[in-house]
Amino acid sequence: MLFDEVLAAGPVRAQVSDAAWLQAMLDAEAALARAQADAGLIDQAVAEDIAAECVASRFDVAELAGAAAATGNPAAPLARALTERVPPEARRFVHRGATSQDILDTAAMLVARRAVSAVLVDLWACCDDLGTLCAEHRDTVQAGRTLLQQALPTTFGLTVAGWLSGLGSAGRSLDGVRPAAQLGGAVGTLASLHPAGPAVLAAYARRLGLREPDVPWHTERGRIADLAGVLGRVCGCVAKIAGDVVLLAQTEVGELTESADGAGGSSTLPHKRNPVAAVSARASAVRAPGLVATLLACAAQEHQRAAGAWHAEWEPLADLLRVTGSAVSWLRTSVSRLTVHPERMRANLMGEALLAERVAAELAPTMGRVEAHDAVAECVRAGRDLTSLGVDPELLDPAGYLGAAGEFVDRALAAHARRRDGR
Amino acid sequence: MLFDEVLAAGPVRAQVSDAAWLQAMLDAEAALARAQADAGLIDQAVAEDIAAECVASRFDVAELAGAAAATGNPAAPLARALTERVPPEARRFVHRGATSQDILDTAAMLVARRAVSAVLVDLWACCDDLGTLCAEHRDTVQAGRTLLQQALPTTFGLTVAGWLSGLGSAGRSLDGVRPAAQLGGAVGTLASLHPAGPAVLAAYARRLGLREPDVPWHTERGRIADLAGVLGRVCGCVAKIAGDVVLLAQTEVGELTESADGAGGSSTLPHKRNPVAAVSARASAVRAPGLVATLLACAAQEHQRAAGAWHAEWEPLADLLRVTGSAVSWLRTSVSRLTVHPERMRANLMGEALLAERVAAELAPTMGRVEAHDAVAECVRAGRDLTSLGVDPELLDPAGYLGAAGEFVDRALAAHARRRDGR
Amino acid sequence: MLFDEVLAAGPVRAQVSDAAWLQAMLDAEAALARAQADAGLIDQAVAEDIAAECVASRFDVAELAGAAAATGNPAAPLARALTERVPPEARRFVHRGATSQDILDTAAMLVARRAVSAVLVDLWACCDDLGTLCAEHRDTVQAGRTLLQQALPTTFGLTVAGWLSGLGSAGRSLDGVRPAAQLGGAVGTLASLHPAGPAVLAAYARRLGLREPDVPWHTERGRIADLAGVLGRVCGCVAKIAGDVVLLAQTEVGELTESADGAGGSSTLPHKRNPVAAVSARASAVRAPGLVATLLACAAQEHQRAAGAWHAEWEPLADLLRVTGSAVSWLRTSVSRLTVHPERMRANLMGEALLAERVAAELAPTMGRVEAHDAVAECVRAGRDLTSLGVDPELLDPAGYLGAAGEFVDRALAAHARRRDGR
Amino acid sequence: MLFDEVLAAGPVRAQVSDAAWLQAMLDAEAALARAQADAGLIDQAVAEDIAAECVASRFDVAELAGAAAATGNPAAPLARALTERVPPEARRFVHRGATSQDILDTAAMLVARRAVSAVLVDLWACCDDLGTLCAEHRDTVQAGRTLLQQALPTTFGLTVAGWLSGLGSAGRSLDGVRPAAQLGGAVGTLASLHPAGPAVLAAYARRLGLREPDVPWHTERGRIADLAGVLGRVCGCVAKIAGDVVLLAQTEVGELTESADGAGGSSTLPHKRNPVAAVSARASAVRAPGLVATLLACAAQEHQRAAGAWHAEWEPLADLLRVTGSAVSWLRTSVSRLTVHPERMRANLMGEALLAERVAAELAPTMGRVEAHDAVAECVRAGRDLTSLGVDPELLDPAGYLGAAGEFVDRALAAHARRRDGR
Repeated sequence: MLFDEVLAAGPVRAQVSDAAWLQAMLDAEAALARAQADAGLIDQAVAEDIAAECVASRFDVAELAGAAAATGNPAAPLARALTERVPPEARRFVHRGATSQDILDTAAMLVARRAVSAVLVDLWACCDDLGTLCAEHRDTVQAGRTLLQQALPTTFGLTVAGWLSGLGSAGRSLDGVRPAAQLGGAVGTLASLHPAGPAVLAAYARRLGLREPDVPWHTERGRIADLAGVLGRVCGCVAKIAGDVVLLAQTEVGELTESADGAGGSSTLPHKRNPVAAVSARASAVRAPGLVATLLACAAQEHQRAAGAWHAEWEPLADLLRVTGSAVSWLRTSVSRLTVHPERMRANLMGEALLAERVAAELAPTMGRVEAHDAVAECVRAGRDLTSLGVDPELLDPAGYLGAAGEFVDRALAAHARRRDGR
Repeated sequence: MLFDEVLAAGPVRAQVSDAAWLQAMLDAEAALARAQADAGLIDQAVAEDIAAECVASRFDVAELAGAAAATGNPAAPLARALTERVPPEARRFVHRGATSQDILDTAAMLVARRAVSAVLVDLWACCDDLGTLCAEHRDTVQAGRTLLQQALPTTFGLTVAGWLSGLGSAGRSLDGVRPAAQLGGAVGTLASLHPAGPAVLAAYARRLGLREPDVPWHTERGRIADLAGVLGRVCGCVAKIAGDVVLLAQTEVGELTESADGAGGSSTLPHKRNPVAAVSARASAVRAPGLVATLLACAAQEHQRAAGAWHAEWEPLADLLRVTGSAVSWLRTSVSRLTVHPERMRANLMGEALLAERVAAELAPTMGRVEAHDAVAECVRAGRDLTSLGVDPELLDPAGYLGAAGEFVDRALAAHARRRDGR
Repeated sequence: MLFDEVLAAGPVRAQVSDAAWLQAMLDAEAALARAQADAGLIDQAVAEDIAAECVASRFDVAELAGAAAATGNPAAPLARALTERVPPEARRFVHRGATSQDILDTAAMLVARRAVSAVLVDLWACCDDLGTLCAEHRDTVQAGRTLLQQALPTTFGLTVAGWLSGLGSAGRSLDGVRPAAQLGGAVGTLASLHPAGPAVLAAYARRLGLREPDVPWHTERGRIADLAGVLGRVCGCVAKIAGDVVLLAQTEVGELTESADGAGGSSTLPHKRNPVAAVSARASAVRAPGLVATLLACAAQEHQRAAGAWHAEWEPLADLLRVTGSAVSWLRTSVSRLTVHPERMRANLMGEALLAERVAAELAPTMGRVEAHDAVAECVRAGRDLTSLGVDPELLDPAGYLGAAGEFVDRALAAHARRRDGR
Repeated sequence: MLFDEVLAAGPVRAQVSDAAWLQAMLDAEAALARAQADAGLIDQAVAEDIAAECVASRFDVAELAGAAAATGNPAAPLARALTERVPPEARRFVHRGATSQDILDTAAMLVARRAVSAVLVDLWACCDDLGTLCAEHRDTVQAGRTLLQQALPTTFGLTVAGWLSGLGSAGRSLDGVRPAAQLGGAVGTLASLHPAGPAVLAAYARRLGLREPDVPWHTERGRIADLAGVLGRVCGCVAKIAGDVVLLAQTEVGELTESADGAGGSSTLPHKRNPVAAVSARASAVRAPGLVATLLACAAQEHQRAAGAWHAEWEPLADLLRVTGSAVSWLRTSVSRLTVHPERMRANLMGEALLAERVAAELAPTMGRVEAHDAVAECVRAGRDLTSLGVDPELLDPAGYLGAAGEFVDRALAAHARRRDGR
């Protein structure tokens, strides 16, 4: 908790809490009871008796957690505890046909879906803010930087269009995640529900709003890999944008500042205005590659159910959802705090050397391309004016050498509008 | 090369070779020339003069590689070398408007697409073999194992159906990868092609059969992340299947053997029949999580073009394509070599304890579920026959407690058939 | 917490808790106060006034955590809260000269040292148990398995000797970790303590029992990398041993069982005796590589203090300490629960084929090595007795072909004894 | 090869080449022959007959590589090929007692030792250059930057002292790596050499200059983890330093430039002077965390020899050695190319706000610490001179507020001198 404000910011934290996991497990148990009724195995009333007890606040997380040591997971003691709470005649229908992993995997998918929804709220809001910023600065000239050296003029609008394009695409991928229910019994045959197994599975998935898998996937973790991959992509996107904000906010660059009352101060340095939201976004996002790698490494699960690799997924999955949410939430905060300094962008332009490419291209037809390139380079190196090469001084206006920057901004905004319509 | 037979098996190796990269870069240069003609900037004949020289075998890889030290990448010296080869009047149109990264990113996408196609040939063939195996053993009884302990009966058909379902789904994801062209010039504005930049970009992408991006993506690496994620998923799937083969081929289990003339022998142990294809598949696949993590970590690229993180992508991307191809190729080999031993599967069944769940369920209505569970557990522990609990001996036939195994096999085969039709 | 019994077992959990971090930060503040007195900057009484308030239970973790959002870390609000608690005349000496990172880095090192000590208690106890097991089964014949195929006879003693050698060496490395204090002020110059900075640093380190660094290491994270590396090594070692336990406990192998009242049962399968401790050890250990990678990736910290990579270290460092502790604790539990079945080890030996190497070596001087190898392989393949090749039947006794197994056991035990003496 | 100039710079490339691996395997075979003679098992002349053929150039790498597919590694075909080359009477002593992994693991350790030596040449040379730089700029005032914002004055000397301290410590750790020989035969008992196994092992290790292990370590990979950890640390250190160079070389900062004829140019931008060596160092170093993670994940090796995880080590180990060498080599190049611009460092200082901490500390005794902090912050925010708070203008000289910077530089240089003496 101590680090949660920094590394677990935003609404996702609640979605991956112990309470959220517990409720998701109970949602799975309730759906299983109702699915038995849907399949005609038990009375609807019995199912509702069970479902009525599936409320997280009635259970003691600490007790369940403690009991998990014996069997290796908390779903087993939860099934026992739930059984004890329901009317005697309903007891043998609690958790019926299921194995612990059915409940926990289904809960993980519910947790993931809810967490992803929470992430998307922040992500789309951030995209909207980026869209506004991008439109506003469509024609604001800024130095384009390669290898952190000024290279050619661009616009801040195009800089932001790149951010928007990346975040929006990542958001669409995240929005496309469709988690599946898990129900197979001990070895995936649903033997104890036979012959109603598939019917129960179908009803169970439908009740939970999750996809129905072709076959149980206890040790086929492609769905986890897919989810991990897209969360990793989102974090990578945040890391890129937040990194640019930090670089543009450098004292010596000063093209952006994060403005916020009370935030970004220092315990010892009264003058500091740290871009603390962007920094926290980076700090959150940097966790992703290692977590994705761990989840991918867990794919090698043995036989019908794994001896460790499955248990190892729980925390990194929750962590990955959390840090992704935190990264996106902080990024949204950072973007919402941004003050843009167009005059500083203009002042930072390094001078006519920034138009060297243009001058070289202008000279190429007469001098030859390589010769023109070398002549311009020599001129810059020697500190001579590029006009000394006989080119029209108008060619040295950065605002006149922006190429398709405006058009690319418009394309990014159009794609953003399409995604917004499709949400 | 020394380890290539093990860790770079199959057709992908050639697709990620130096020659393949070089040709892909030249394909990008050729497309750029033709795209200029398509956009009306140059004559078609000039474009063809350039394209005619875009043949990898005419260039010296070692020389280009050596020249890369000065600029930091091999695309820059390649552009110079190509320029020298074309007729004088075509020279200033070579590489025009492009930056090195445009050529290398586009080449990377071409390499990826070609490598993915090669992987898919092996992957679909392996799926077909798994489909056959699955259908053939739809009703072959096998012990279902959880935490590597026998748990309940299942069928080898369902075991394979799980493999098939995972590999087929992963294949479909891989098949959905749609790489995009890259063309933006030094800072993504295509300034030196203005106002024809977007027209050239569109033609360039069309010529290469790559997607046209909304905006240049020099430092927006979501596409790389997506590709990495799906390759990681494929490797995870291979690791799971190959791991199961290794476990089922253990001396003490003996339910599968990899049969091959000359393969799997030992330098010192004359009797050994190692499942060398499955082992090599695992060895190849285990690289994926680390490579995916590296590619995801490279997403944080600065400004308009990155100071290192971009260069750092080249090798892990090629390695990831290669090891995925190797893993899939070895898996295909392993599956094609498999001999199944149904009689050993039957003999390995641990006895009536394997039906403990069924007996407990049978007793539950009269004894209560918890009491029945405990009574059966006690009986097994004490080594007494389960019939001593008064249940019908017919309940103790493993073949009679397979639940929906057959139905799940049929579902997996139907999904496989749908995917096959959709290829 | 829900998963803590499985993934945060043992005494380390408490050492990486919020309370433990908070106390460690306060220990740093107390040491800083006393170090000022040691350096003659303030009265001893003032220092003790400050130190007396450095008690975690007097602070509200939730409040500090909440206040961290503004500055990006909890050390800044803690300094303010501590300042408010001390007598007015002591206030300006609280946190004096320090920056937030000084306190948090030092706290991290204290947390690490305490957690490592807790891990070592379990690790050495586990080594002692392995030593006993190893000595006891010095001559217990067991199949040696390569690529999961029986290869040659070995002893269970040598199997365990390998485990012991690995765990003991890893333990010694862990024991050699010597964390350093951190104190540099905002940019590492200790300007506000000038000219007493180095004297305060020396006293601060001495008070805390931490090493005194040559220079502040705010952005030089080699110490974190070293710690991460050795924790990763320990986890790898646990994963190997626990994996072997799981394999040897397979139903079809049955050479080991984890025996424990109440543990290892299944929610649905009354007969199951899962090796739940070994499984949980694996589940804990598998997190390490991803966490180590994240910590290594965080090494690239900018200038005097980093913009995100430092914040990103807190959780993975704590997680890595925790999962290492959990892995070792579960391994200790697993080893303490082991029942060895020497008769099953003997019965599992695959027969005379296991002596194929020996027979081939016996025949080599007369037949030639390659020819002998091939003759024996052919004989095994055809299912003929190896005695048909004319060798002495006594050569086919597994217990007679154990090479230096016993001697290697003795060497491992001697090394263990040396390490034990050196603890 | 195409990317080798960038990602495999320096002398390490040759040490991890196919030829180097092949020679190292042959060195192991030669040492094994001689060790048999040392142990009195064979004549010295026979051993020398074998050793005389252990020359890499006499073998065809492509042929050996191709033959590796059948057995899963190149050591087995190498043993066969070597056997065919030696006199008939020596043949049965070639590879005697060894398994393929003995030869490959020993070769890996030889490759590692040689590669590490090559890395250290560059590393120590780079440290010497940093030492010179550090001494030269002991008192050169530079802005200290936290979160990429100017915070307080420091010196460029102290900046470099931090780099030197990190790189030197990492170098010492790397220098402490002591690889061990591997010799155990198929399952680690050295049965076929019995009773001379341990004597042969001792002689073999001595001949190779490698440590003699207590027990064979075929599946105990702690040594690999240790090596990986320290290489990861070195790369992290390079990434930090090279990252700082890139940041300080930014157009807007300009405190450092990499000066080199012909290097750092751009294919399209005539004016660019990219810090290409630092960029390439970063690109090389960024591979390390993923490679370390893969090697750590490979630690979970089964039984006496692993089914895939061992094979999976070869490439990442070689890659990790290579990228570490490349990173260090490029860093050495970068440092040797550095031009320092002290006047720009001075000009970049943001003004009196940089002394805000000092002013606040000066005011604290009278105003109270919190009040002083807030008053100064307000003053800076309002753009008023700090002298308006009534402090002595002399306090606002950055060169007068450097704390222990000089002393820390001296400490770092002293530690460097001690390490240099100890090399």
